Amino acid sequence: MAKEKDFVKDITSQSEDFSRWYIDTITKADLMDYSPVRGCIVFKPDGYELWEAVVRELDRRFKETGHRNAYFPLFIPESFFEKEKEHVKGFNPELPWVTEVGDEKLEERLAVRPTSETMIGYMYSQWIQSYRDLPLLINQWANVVRWEKRTLPFIRTSEFLWQEGHTAHATPEEAEQETRQMLDVYTDFVENELSIPILRGKKTPSEKFPGAVATYSIEAMMKDGKALQAGTSHYLGDKFARAFDIKFLDRDNERKFVYTTSWGMTTRIIGALIMVHGDDRGLQIPPRIAPTQVIMIPIGPAKTRERVLAASDDVFAQLKQAGIRVRVDDREDLSPGWKFNEYEMRGIPVRLELGPRDLDAEQAVLVRRDTGEKETVALSALTERIQTLLTEIQQSMFDRALAFRTEHSHPVTSLDQLHDVVRNQHGFALAGWCGEDACEAKVKEETGATSRNIPFDPPQQMTHCVACGKESAHTVWFARAY
Amino acid sequence: MAKEKDFVKDITSQSEDFSRWYIDTITKADLMDYSPVRGCIVFKPDGYELWEAVVRELDRRFKETGHRNAYFPLFIPESFFEKEKEHVKGFNPELPWVTEVGDEKLEERLAVRPTSETMIGYMYSQWIQSYRDLPLLINQWANVVRWEKRTLPFIRTSEFLWQEGHTAHATPEEAEQETRQMLDVYTDFVENELSIPILRGKKTPSEKFPGAVATYSIEAMMKDGKALQAGTSHYLGDKFARAFDIKFLDRDNERKFVYTTSWGMTTRIIGALIMVHGDDRGLQIPPRIAPTQVIMIPIGPAKTRERVLAASDDVFAQLKQAGIRVRVDDREDLSPGWKFNEYEMRGIPVRLELGPRDLDAEQAVLVRRDTGEKETVALSALTERIQTLLTEIQQSMFDRALAFRTEHSHPVTSLDQLHDVVRNQHGFALAGWCGEDACEAKVKEETGATSRNIPFDPPQQMTHCVACGKESAHTVWFARAY
Repeated sequence: MAKEKDFVKDITSQSEDFSRWYIDTITKADLMDYSPVRGCIVFKPDGYELWEAVVRELDRRFKETGHRNAYFPLFIPESFFEKEKEHVKGFNPELPWVTEVGDEKLEERLAVRPTSETMIGYMYSQWIQSYRDLPLLINQWANVVRWEKRTLPFIRTSEFLWQEGHTAHATPEEAEQETRQMLDVYTDFVENELSIPILRGKKTPSEKFPGAVATYSIEAMMKDGKALQAGTSHYLGDKFARAFDIKFLDRDNERKFVYTTSWGMTTRIIGALIMVHGDDRGLQIPPRIAPTQVIMIPIGPAKTRERVLAASDDVFAQLKQAGIRVRVDDREDLSPGWKFNEYEMRGIPVRLELGPRDLDAEQAVLVRRDTGEKETVALSALTERIQTLLTEIQQSMFDRALAFRTEHSHPVTSLDQLHDVVRNQHGFALAGWCGEDACEAKVKEETGATSRNIPFDPPQQMTHCVACGKESAHTVWFARAY
Repeated sequence: MAKEKDFVKDITSQSEDFSRWYIDTITKADLMDYSPVRGCIVFKPDGYELWEAVVRELDRRFKETGHRNAYFPLFIPESFFEKEKEHVKGFNPELPWVTEVGDEKLEERLAVRPTSETMIGYMYSQWIQSYRDLPLLINQWANVVRWEKRTLPFIRTSEFLWQEGHTAHATPEEAEQETRQMLDVYTDFVENELSIPILRGKKTPSEKFPGAVATYSIEAMMKDGKALQAGTSHYLGDKFARAFDIKFLDRDNERKFVYTTSWGMTTRIIGALIMVHGDDRGLQIPPRIAPTQVIMIPIGPAKTRERVLAASDDVFAQLKQAGIRVRVDDREDLSPGWKFNEYEMRGIPVRLELGPRDLDAEQAVLVRRDTGEKETVALSALTERIQTLLTEIQQSMFDRALAFRTEHSHPVTSLDQLHDVVRNQHGFALAGWCGEDACEAKVKEETGATSRNIPFDPPQQMTHCVACGKESAHTVWFARAY
């Protein structure tokens, strides 16, 4: 479907206008389109393919940790939301309501789910009877809707795709352990598959999930220095158990409330991938998650075409056999130079060029998307070299993102400094906080930054509250955020 | 979560009450639960796992035939439905409407999608410009909602999961070929993975999809002799192209309407699987689709337990290595006899028993779920024998279902005969039809049977209309249907 004229236009540079760069990039790379429904996007095949890769890798990890998938109804009766007060308050303004079916009014309004704690809580109250039914470890892949005032493709859309894990346990300790385990699973996935370094920590009370006892998050730095919450894991204590009367008969013959958790990752992770790794030439997809890892481009004059195509078929078969995700672009009506630009823009990690002179010398040319480095490799060593190269690129992309984040993270001891870091230096500020909501609100008001989380392992302890100067209770990451 | 007491109750026999047998079976096998939302079920892990297997096998086939996945919005603006008159008429009574978000009324009502022809038609009108953009071959995995008056778990629920393929082509021939190709894909999947023999044919005009030019279906016979439509493929001509102005610039420099198709298979296929193969002992899952193909049950007295478990670990590893989906149930608090019953009820194709005397003789016992046949196999030959056995079971299940259908299918030449076949003999009737809607309606009124399809290859041609006696235009399958 590519037409040569589409891709010669430039992408706005990141330094000129990061937001425009983002929209230019995802549009040109054909990842999405706007839909006629406000705040909803269409995930086009190249964008959806990234989500399929995310699903594959996360789903494998969920199953390895003993979780099973299930599917619960899209609609949630209004009365269910009323059962957990903080929960209904948190979600109410964003809820789409089904009030009619065909020509008939419904007796009770049905919300389109923004998350499924209430529905799943109700079902768990039916399913859990005894300690033998615990732990109950279930995940759901689903669409959810939260009507957003300001939307941004992938990052914040009214409808999005996600997974939501919901587990029930006999003790608070076990539930807290599950909450932390799933944060570990997210960390492993995001750092090792997506090459995105993350900051792990606990949300402040004002930023936690409506209805949670504690929310843990992983936060990543985008290339404009803003933060993106990439995944959350909630310890819900017995709050939903009490709201939905989820009780079990314990070994000691007493009926007790269960302790529950929930945890989610959404299609916004695709936005993070783009904003962490992309550059002025377009996307950069880390090899482990890339639907296509190697793009092969046969080159040379028409008279050598047959010979080059035959050789490229061989190389293709050999790479595919080795489990490398490879594609060949042998379209005749497009120049090699145009194709080079196109696949750089689409972020394919490695380009493989094969021409008649390469064949004479029994070699091929490999070009890295991340550094632009070119190397010549003997055909006999090609598979092995590409495998190593993909591993190197995966690590380099992580290292580069980590160096960027380190460079843009600063300890601060005053609101002025914090303002300077998040506004002028486009970075994260590490600051002390006394624990008062008012001080957190003051930071937000004066700098636009929100608390990201209270890190498990802060690079240093900050001793005084950045807002009031009193002794700090926590060391906190502050940043402007998506 | 299994408790010994749950599984000793009997399942209602099929001959006593097929409907109760169905509900008993899916409930005991823990496949689903009713939800608090009318007509919506919860897909519990064992039920959802069957859907995951269906998705895996269908998705592979869609990709092999050049389709890519995408995702479109859940909500469809009311005005979109108005654009195709038959379409809106067909779906209107079943549509849930979102009329409010938070506390605000929406200006235009949004339907929760019952299918996505209209939304996708609109997007295609944006994406398709030239013949180079064709064919456009997209599939979507999604939830859809059609508010049903009478529901039955899996078979007919208000919300269900499905895939919907939507393609656009330059010519009617190409679109018709796609329509037929996808019917072939469904046939291959249902017959070879699910061991369900199907009848392929064209729907009569009164039974076709609202807005289609032609609908093709695959129909299967359940064990109560009723029909279930297992998949449909629609040729939409240029009707949606005209409704949504989807045009392309052809090679001859003229702007032309595209020709579109759509095709879908839903979670009701799980219901078909159960009703075709299940028996009075519970489910029977064909090996190729079974999440667990072999259940290993270590047996023998406590003192030999350690030795048997060590050996069963070895066998497990060896089978898993060979790609066989195997599980071990080594729970100590449940008797082997109870486990045998449980896994028969759950429909696991092969049971593997391993005890101390088997180990002495270097052998194991295999039991087929479908026939109950037992055989003793040398441990050294076990993997190979199981692989062959799984293939045999897959084929036997198909053969048995085909024999059942053949036995319950009869040519008829009068309404009395037709009535007798569908009501008393619980089967399908092959009958002539003149082509008049009135005659089709008369059959339905007098016998409760609907036309299933006009088969591509009827076992024989029926020369006169079963209702009016005039010369027949088509030979048609009639049956009572789910």
